[in-house]
Amino acid sequence: ISTNNESAITTLFKEVHFADVAEVLDEVNFEEAIYIIKLLDSEKTSEILTELEVDIREKILENLSAKEIAEEIEEMDTDDAADIIGELSDERQKRVINALEDDELAADIKELLSYDENTAGALMAKELVKVYETWTVAGCMRRIRGQAKDVTRVHSIYVVDKEDKLVGRLSLKDLIIAKSDQQIADILKSKVDSVNVNEDDEEVAKIMAKYDLEAIPVVDDNKVLLGRITIDDIVDVLKDEAERDYQLAAGLTQDVDSDDSILQLTRARLPWLFLGLVGGIGAFIIMEGFQGVFTKYASLFFFTPLIAAMAGNVGVQSSAIIVQGLANDDVKGSINSRLLKEMLLAALNGIILALFLFFFVWAYEGKIDTALAISTSLVAVIIVAGLIGTFVPLFLNKRGIDPAIATGPFITTSNDIFGILIYFLIAKMILGI
Amino acid sequence: ISTNNESAITTLFKEVHFADVAEVLDEVNFEEAIYIIKLLDSEKTSEILTELEVDIREKILENLSAKEIAEEIEEMDTDDAADIIGELSDERQKRVINALEDDELAADIKELLSYDENTAGALMAKELVKVYETWTVAGCMRRIRGQAKDVTRVHSIYVVDKEDKLVGRLSLKDLIIAKSDQQIADILKSKVDSVNVNEDDEEVAKIMAKYDLEAIPVVDDNKVLLGRITIDDIVDVLKDEAERDYQLAAGLTQDVDSDDSILQLTRARLPWLFLGLVGGIGAFIIMEGFQGVFTKYASLFFFTPLIAAMAGNVGVQSSAIIVQGLANDDVKGSINSRLLKEMLLAALNGIILALFLFFFVWAYEGKIDTALAISTSLVAVIIVAGLIGTFVPLFLNKRGIDPAIATGPFITTSNDIFGILIYFLIAKMILGI
Repeated sequence: ISTNNESAITTLFKEVHFADVAEVLDEVNFEEAIYIIKLLDSEKTSEILTELEVDIREKILENLSAKEIAEEIEEMDTDDAADIIGELSDERQKRVINALEDDELAADIKELLSYDENTAGALMAKELVKVYETWTVAGCMRRIRGQAKDVTRVHSIYVVDKEDKLVGRLSLKDLIIAKSDQQIADILKSKVDSVNVNEDDEEVAKIMAKYDLEAIPVVDDNKVLLGRITIDDIVDVLKDEAERDYQLAAGLTQDVDSDDSILQLTRARLPWLFLGLVGGIGAFIIMEGFQGVFTKYASLFFFTPLIAAMAGNVGVQSSAIIVQGLANDDVKGSINSRLLKEMLLAALNGIILALFLFFFVWAYEGKIDTALAISTSLVAVIIVAGLIGTFVPLFLNKRGIDPAIATGPFITTSNDIFGILIYFLIAKMILGI
Repeated sequence: ISTNNESAITTLFKEVHFADVAEVLDEVNFEEAIYIIKLLDSEKTSEILTELEVDIREKILENLSAKEIAEEIEEMDTDDAADIIGELSDERQKRVINALEDDELAADIKELLSYDENTAGALMAKELVKVYETWTVAGCMRRIRGQAKDVTRVHSIYVVDKEDKLVGRLSLKDLIIAKSDQQIADILKSKVDSVNVNEDDEEVAKIMAKYDLEAIPVVDDNKVLLGRITIDDIVDVLKDEAERDYQLAAGLTQDVDSDDSILQLTRARLPWLFLGLVGGIGAFIIMEGFQGVFTKYASLFFFTPLIAAMAGNVGVQSSAIIVQGLANDDVKGSINSRLLKEMLLAALNGIILALFLFFFVWAYEGKIDTALAISTSLVAVIIVAGLIGTFVPLFLNKRGIDPAIATGPFITTSNDIFGILIYFLIAKMILGI
């Protein structure tokens, strides 16, 4: 780049896949990225732009005029185009849309921008191959040749009636196999899955994964065909969903990655750590309340980290299982039966662990009453922790709140406090203090 | 079902999608499931079998003869067929394969079974549309009509030379648009991504997601075309990967769900809890060693749960970011620069939290030296916890071990111990005990 050998660069990047170019641009410094983008033709750069990371794309777009952006947009599929325009300020959105030469495209993008985020409408593309049920196979083939040029990949051909309502689908294969004078209405498959334009995108992902669909048509409340969603968009939805759940479980507010700045990372991490700090102060206050116990049973205090850790771990395990079960739609039965099962499970785990702890403390400390007190309360703490871990995500889910926030620091912190409190109460009772 | 009204059931299930039937079968009791499977014709049941949960499918297959299974298998795509046969015992595998009437299918399945799990070979299907570069468009169309009947979805047509080596691809669209007397060699796209049959399946998923591919051809070391992988298989790989990472982070050995038996769940949860228990005992031993400090600075002990919680939370946060970064291939730069960044980040977070804690302890306890000791060691603990959380997954990854095991209980437990040790050492030093 430093030698500014334009033609060499152009040739070099022409051979490379746009996703790889995007990776290079994510790496090089900003002026170089702009330089490369302006050098390549818009057919290629439009693809590169869609692959870039959001923050870098934002910076590049700031350096392009509305006219230049419009040129890039015209090369894109409508769904990508709408996503990118959606990232601009309202003011620039209008200017870019006005700069589009293709009026139909401008209308499509305006429509796509009007749907709420995380709905099927925001995910779909307007490009699709649509035929009327009254056409013949031969006529259909002829017209598809025209439509298909705009559509990168033909998954299904959607058949509509004269009011543009979806009535069936066809594959290209069906069309090739059929005789050329047959009518579309005679060869269409009337069983066609579709989703409403306002459907949640994670729901769409579930449907497509369940039925192994590669594309699904999107319709409005009157069954009028509006667009289609392809499986590659769903892959992104699934990845984002998994990443978000994972980050929530680890105590990160969503949308950070390891290359973000220290300030961005602090913003994602500090609130959860602060929650932990407040929880720790809670534990401190509880322990201070039991200070009097220390003179006689000092070792009780030395087991608090163990109790807190076990309460936290059990809570995270049971909440993670519930959160994952809810995501896969396979949590069945009532909350009560779930809680009962978790209680039995926690009791079983707790008793096994407590037995081990009992013999350790007895052998190490030589006091059977301390050993009994500590291990009995461990069982109680594990059961309560399991119940909290099971109940909280189920409760949040019932209330329509994302249960994934219940995993990680939230459950750990509350279980720490409850665990230590239960521990001292039961130990005091058993030891008769 | 109880009234055994065969025709009514058959009609009912005929209308329903096989994925939904599979869900019903997962629910009903076992005799009913067998009854329904035997009632429906093999075209439908074969699809249902592929959708069933593994444990239920296993039970159903046990109740079918080799001949009956072979009939089901003949209706399946080769990849699903190989997966299901792979679940049988070696003995039954042979009998089912021998019972297959289609010799070519039997050979395909044997080939697919020979590839290692989690490779492209184990994931691919043999069904694909293959044409020779020397054919004309018209001849090609004629032969595709034959081949395509076996292939559920035609993604791409793969073009091979006379040695069956992959030389390019075509879309059905290209074929429809081309003139019928053109030669395939003239219209093929020579740029075609492919993966080696021994490639890791998660790597294949990454490639397909990155380049937005819907299908990718699989070749051997000599570039001979062996099969193809479609994006719906990749969706499953991605989901499994995300679930596994999530479960590891939550302290669950992989592959449990909320409907598993208490014994299965205990097997998944107990080992990690045991790890926590051992860690807790380690913390106990450390604290006992510092017992003498108690008379003068009792409150130090009451802050151990706070210290342990912060060490655990910071460790999980930093390891989760690294694990996710590694999964997305965007951890760049040396280990040292990563550690330096994490150190700065942890120091920043630590100082903010420590300031808060300092004023709390000062106000609450009235002792400025205790407050200083506790908050200073908090900063040190957070920095060390962040470094461990960053280093361990990077180290495991370098060693070729899945870094995801470093999140969750593993990092929490080790950070608990290190945290408490550092805490008491620094506090003792500052307080001059």
